[in-house]
Amino acid sequence: MTKGLFITFEGIDGCGKSTQLRLLKEFFDSNNIEYVEVREPGGTKIGEKIRGVLLDKKNDSMVPMAELLLFEAARAQIVEEVIKPSLACGKCVICDRFFDSSSAYQGYANGMGAQLVSSMNDIATGGLKPDVTFLLDIDPKTAYERRNNRGEEEDRIELMGLNYQDKVRAGYLEIEANEDRVVKIDAVNSPEAIFAIIKEKVWDLIV
Amino acid sequence: MTKGLFITFEGIDGCGKSTQLRLLKEFFDSNNIEYVEVREPGGTKIGEKIRGVLLDKKNDSMVPMAELLLFEAARAQIVEEVIKPSLACGKCVICDRFFDSSSAYQGYANGMGAQLVSSMNDIATGGLKPDVTFLLDIDPKTAYERRNNRGEEEDRIELMGLNYQDKVRAGYLEIEANEDRVVKIDAVNSPEAIFAIIKEKVWDLIV
Repeated sequence: MTKGLFITFEGIDGCGKSTQLRLLKEFFDSNNIEYVEVREPGGTKIGEKIRGVLLDKKNDSMVPMAELLLFEAARAQIVEEVIKPSLACGKCVICDRFFDSSSAYQGYANGMGAQLVSSMNDIATGGLKPDVTFLLDIDPKTAYERRNNRGEEEDRIELMGLNYQDKVRAGYLEIEANEDRVVKIDAVNSPEAIFAIIKEKVWDLIV
Repeated sequence: MTKGLFITFEGIDGCGKSTQLRLLKEFFDSNNIEYVEVREPGGTKIGEKIRGVLLDKKNDSMVPMAELLLFEAARAQIVEEVIKPSLACGKCVICDRFFDSSSAYQGYANGMGAQLVSSMNDIATGGLKPDVTFLLDIDPKTAYERRNNRGEEEDRIELMGLNYQDKVRAGYLEIEANEDRVVKIDAVNSPEAIFAIIKEKVWDLIV
């Protein structure tokens, strides 16, 4: 009855991705829909080691190109090891960040250029694209206050400040303007209202 | 009197690179030629962490694309952090492996294709090329026996066997046929005979 859907979640930190991921998993569980959940960077043994290098605050001398290539390396691993095999046997794949993160963070915010990052994304994934991408759009200041209220410690990328997050957000909106697969949702809405949109879209695609 | 030269050493493991690196450093020291020595993958704090992921025998599930991208990430870091600044202030840079290793190992031996790897090399380095590359050419079986006699433990890539090393060697020879900067030296010669060739070439370029 169902086919394997590749679903990604995007947005700046504090946009509410984790809550929506949890709600979608509960929805899949209660409807007996098989899924695999992964996160980027990471999601594999090798990817988690790369994640450790990327998010370590001590690595503040990392140049933008090295950062991009590390993200792409983790991506290449997760695509071949987890995502493609899961989709091939009909499972849904839920991914907390995928290549749009590289486009938004490295391509737009770090100034490496959307075209370069897009071609790197294509090489790392072998051309695989999500069926649907939920972009939880939020003002960086609001997102910052949310994270602050949760008392979370910030990682190397989060420490780059609000101005950086503004650029990331603008990058995401540019991607959304160019890609039909991206569904932008206003993340100041209630979690329930946001999930209603996600559930409807996923249900449409899955049945 | 001297200009910053970018010198790389290539060849399969056991070809004698370490000895030649040592002899070249001694030569530079005794002639008061300033140099920086780096190794690939690694050579920076971030690069050494990437090196750890790449050479860890436990990471045997690594897919070829992830491997290539990790090498390129370490390369991007070392180029910006060490190689370009050193050359800019007139120092020589001696590099134990550089992008020809990716071409030979990933491009030829792992079957990713010379063209793909070449374009990744170009992106990671921003187009920087060595002034001269010494390729120490040796039969893999002879190289294996040398390493064996030294009692060295093999890393993940070395464990891939003689057939793989044959392909790497063939890749190196293909590169040498296409790149004027590559000087092939028969590595079964004595260390002194090999170094005489290297010294003459370096001296020609440096003065």
